[in-house]
Amino acid sequence: MAKRPAGSYRSWLLEANDPAADFPLTHLPYSAFRVTKGQHLCVAIGIHLLDLFACAEAGLLPSSLKVACQSPTLNALMGKGPKAWLLLRETLTQLLAIGSPHQSKLEEALHSIAGATLVRPIEIPDYTDFYASIHHATRVGQLFRPDQPLLPNYKHIPIGYHGRASSIVTSGTPILRPVGQTLPDAGDEMPNAFPTKCLDYELELAFYIGQTNPLGTSVPIDKAADRIFGCSLLNDWSARDVQSWEYQPLGPFLSKSFATSISAWVTPMAALEPFFISSHPKPNTDPKLLKYLELSSKERKIPDLKFEVFLTTRLMRENKLSRFRLSQSSLRALYWTPAQLVAHHTINGCNLQVGDLLATGTISGPLESSAGCLLELTRNGSRPITLPTGEVRSFLSDGDEITLRGFCEKRGHPRIGLGECRATILPARP
Amino acid sequence: MAKRPAGSYRSWLLEANDPAADFPLTHLPYSAFRVTKGQHLCVAIGIHLLDLFACAEAGLLPSSLKVACQSPTLNALMGKGPKAWLLLRETLTQLLAIGSPHQSKLEEALHSIAGATLVRPIEIPDYTDFYASIHHATRVGQLFRPDQPLLPNYKHIPIGYHGRASSIVTSGTPILRPVGQTLPDAGDEMPNAFPTKCLDYELELAFYIGQTNPLGTSVPIDKAADRIFGCSLLNDWSARDVQSWEYQPLGPFLSKSFATSISAWVTPMAALEPFFISSHPKPNTDPKLLKYLELSSKERKIPDLKFEVFLTTRLMRENKLSRFRLSQSSLRALYWTPAQLVAHHTINGCNLQVGDLLATGTISGPLESSAGCLLELTRNGSRPITLPTGEVRSFLSDGDEITLRGFCEKRGHPRIGLGECRATILPARP
Repeated sequence: MAKRPAGSYRSWLLEANDPAADFPLTHLPYSAFRVTKGQHLCVAIGIHLLDLFACAEAGLLPSSLKVACQSPTLNALMGKGPKAWLLLRETLTQLLAIGSPHQSKLEEALHSIAGATLVRPIEIPDYTDFYASIHHATRVGQLFRPDQPLLPNYKHIPIGYHGRASSIVTSGTPILRPVGQTLPDAGDEMPNAFPTKCLDYELELAFYIGQTNPLGTSVPIDKAADRIFGCSLLNDWSARDVQSWEYQPLGPFLSKSFATSISAWVTPMAALEPFFISSHPKPNTDPKLLKYLELSSKERKIPDLKFEVFLTTRLMRENKLSRFRLSQSSLRALYWTPAQLVAHHTINGCNLQVGDLLATGTISGPLESSAGCLLELTRNGSRPITLPTGEVRSFLSDGDEITLRGFCEKRGHPRIGLGECRATILPARP
Repeated sequence: MAKRPAGSYRSWLLEANDPAADFPLTHLPYSAFRVTKGQHLCVAIGIHLLDLFACAEAGLLPSSLKVACQSPTLNALMGKGPKAWLLLRETLTQLLAIGSPHQSKLEEALHSIAGATLVRPIEIPDYTDFYASIHHATRVGQLFRPDQPLLPNYKHIPIGYHGRASSIVTSGTPILRPVGQTLPDAGDEMPNAFPTKCLDYELELAFYIGQTNPLGTSVPIDKAADRIFGCSLLNDWSARDVQSWEYQPLGPFLSKSFATSISAWVTPMAALEPFFISSHPKPNTDPKLLKYLELSSKERKIPDLKFEVFLTTRLMRENKLSRFRLSQSSLRALYWTPAQLVAHHTINGCNLQVGDLLATGTISGPLESSAGCLLELTRNGSRPITLPTGEVRSFLSDGDEITLRGFCEKRGHPRIGLGECRATILPARP
């Protein structure tokens, strides 16, 4: 987008100009909300959502995008490619900026976010989960393979696996504690099937593919970042006791497939551009990468997203106590950039489709306090956390609520927040 | 279906009564074929396909099923549940049996299979691949973990992982040799990215889920078999050198996701009922299963499917020589039944959706000659196979064609064949 004078960051919707707002005029993330018949696409501005179906109906959007903006999901719009994404973003920016001539027409299409039911705005054909934080891989490795925490392949190849798409749910959907096979104690020979005793969250970022590559083709690394339409927060719920029993030799399966939460808002990559930084330089001890993964200085850029994870126990909720911050982390912690993940995913000719979700894996930083899951924070439960209420947690209890937050901040630019990815644990079904 | 006198097995389409036919009147598998605008559903009879769209248009099918039969995929019909499946099957059987009053009307909806382009008849939301043959698991384990071929979890828990749905292709689609990261030699520290040198097939059976279970619910084992609509042949192409480098710790990823082939015909489970047998009794040394996996005598039943794998090299094709049978196997070789796979997949509340594909994993029998992949047949390439042409194979060469066949035979019942799952290997893209 062309540079604008600072004044043009301002919206006639005054809440959008609050420096603490998640959704200023420069953000404009997409979602969908429930209407009497189905769902409408929308964009967030301040504390409101703007109904894109209604805007298209009123003739306020480019006619070439009318059908896509009146679809129940973003997939049609995403499939139109980066020029269409930019056109819609420019149009919405002008409509919502101070001086817009359409203010009165738009007011009918505005609703309070608090009063709306947000639903998943993207149909996700395939979901891939990576393992892109070397700090996460190392600390998890230390727990299970103290002699060789980081496997020999880690610094050469972005490790990933296929996730379960059907059980992806939107922020706010409660999570049932899953039942699964576990070995009651290490060394036991007979497993049992119980509600998991080691329910964990994983702080991740989800990238949505906006452009397909046909089966048999690869996306070169210098084009890979352009394939990504936007991002959301993602919580990859994990049953650690199930995982450790089932994962040999084919990887995690039912320990993850019971639920994955995503935040309702999809932040366009264009909104993050002012916050792009070079990804951390690799230490000299790191091996040279194969050509298909080698980043030029342009592709090294990643948004400087910071993250927080909060726990609210039932006791905190009932007594109106503040939630507890479990950790803080940053996208800088990743060893692999999103462009590398896309290039690697397609090197074998695998076709990515519009709406496919590529998740980073747990975003853990170098410090213990920047770990993105309880497995690391409590060292697999061996060092439980004591909360300010006196409650103790090795893993999550029924009634616990986990909230992920993500944001970018930079002097001279309005702050951008990804909204939240939040869910409460319900007891296992009897 | 109600029992019928032997005469009613006969169709007025005489080729369907050939004892060697794959598609007798008692089979009626579904597929889809290309038409000028899109694709139509169809059913196979002898050497013909019957266009279900046209039959519905002519008023020959139950009006309650008209919309579903005029959809481009089977998903709508599958979603209507077992009563609808049976109603359509009964209707088609009557239309195609000797004595049908609609013969002349039907002739317009009949086309030669040989002249049609078959396309994938099912939209597959999620694809799960299991590891249900203990013979496969043991022999693969012997190659990589001679001290512990079968992992401690194998006899307690059906091992599985999420596969890649986007790269599933129909029989006849050529397979590009994939590029991937491998370690050139064991012990090397630096990987390289090359076309795979260890391209393999895997003989599998695909089961299609016909009824959903909502997220958070499990399918009890005594209801699990009823969730399956039908089955097809599946070839889980594998790049073994890529797999051995990438699979730790999260399982196979790009070594499998470049392509998976399925046969075009979907055999309804109802067609296999005459061939159901008890699954092999477990040896006394096997552990007792957890209750959710425990089979009653009714659920032990599996179709007595036999399989063959054929290799046709370019030399054989050019010289019109017979294809070479690499192996023969049987569904009896599985340690886990389809009902157990469904019950296990949902024990954690994971929602299966209409069209989801659950594959068995490589169907290898107890004999070396009944192994379902070259990894086993050639012991990871260390004992190459010499073909009658004098050619030698450790893994697949460019130009090789692999054909999977599957069938049921039993005295007093027409033989049933699953058709074929066939594909030729093309060289890697430059």
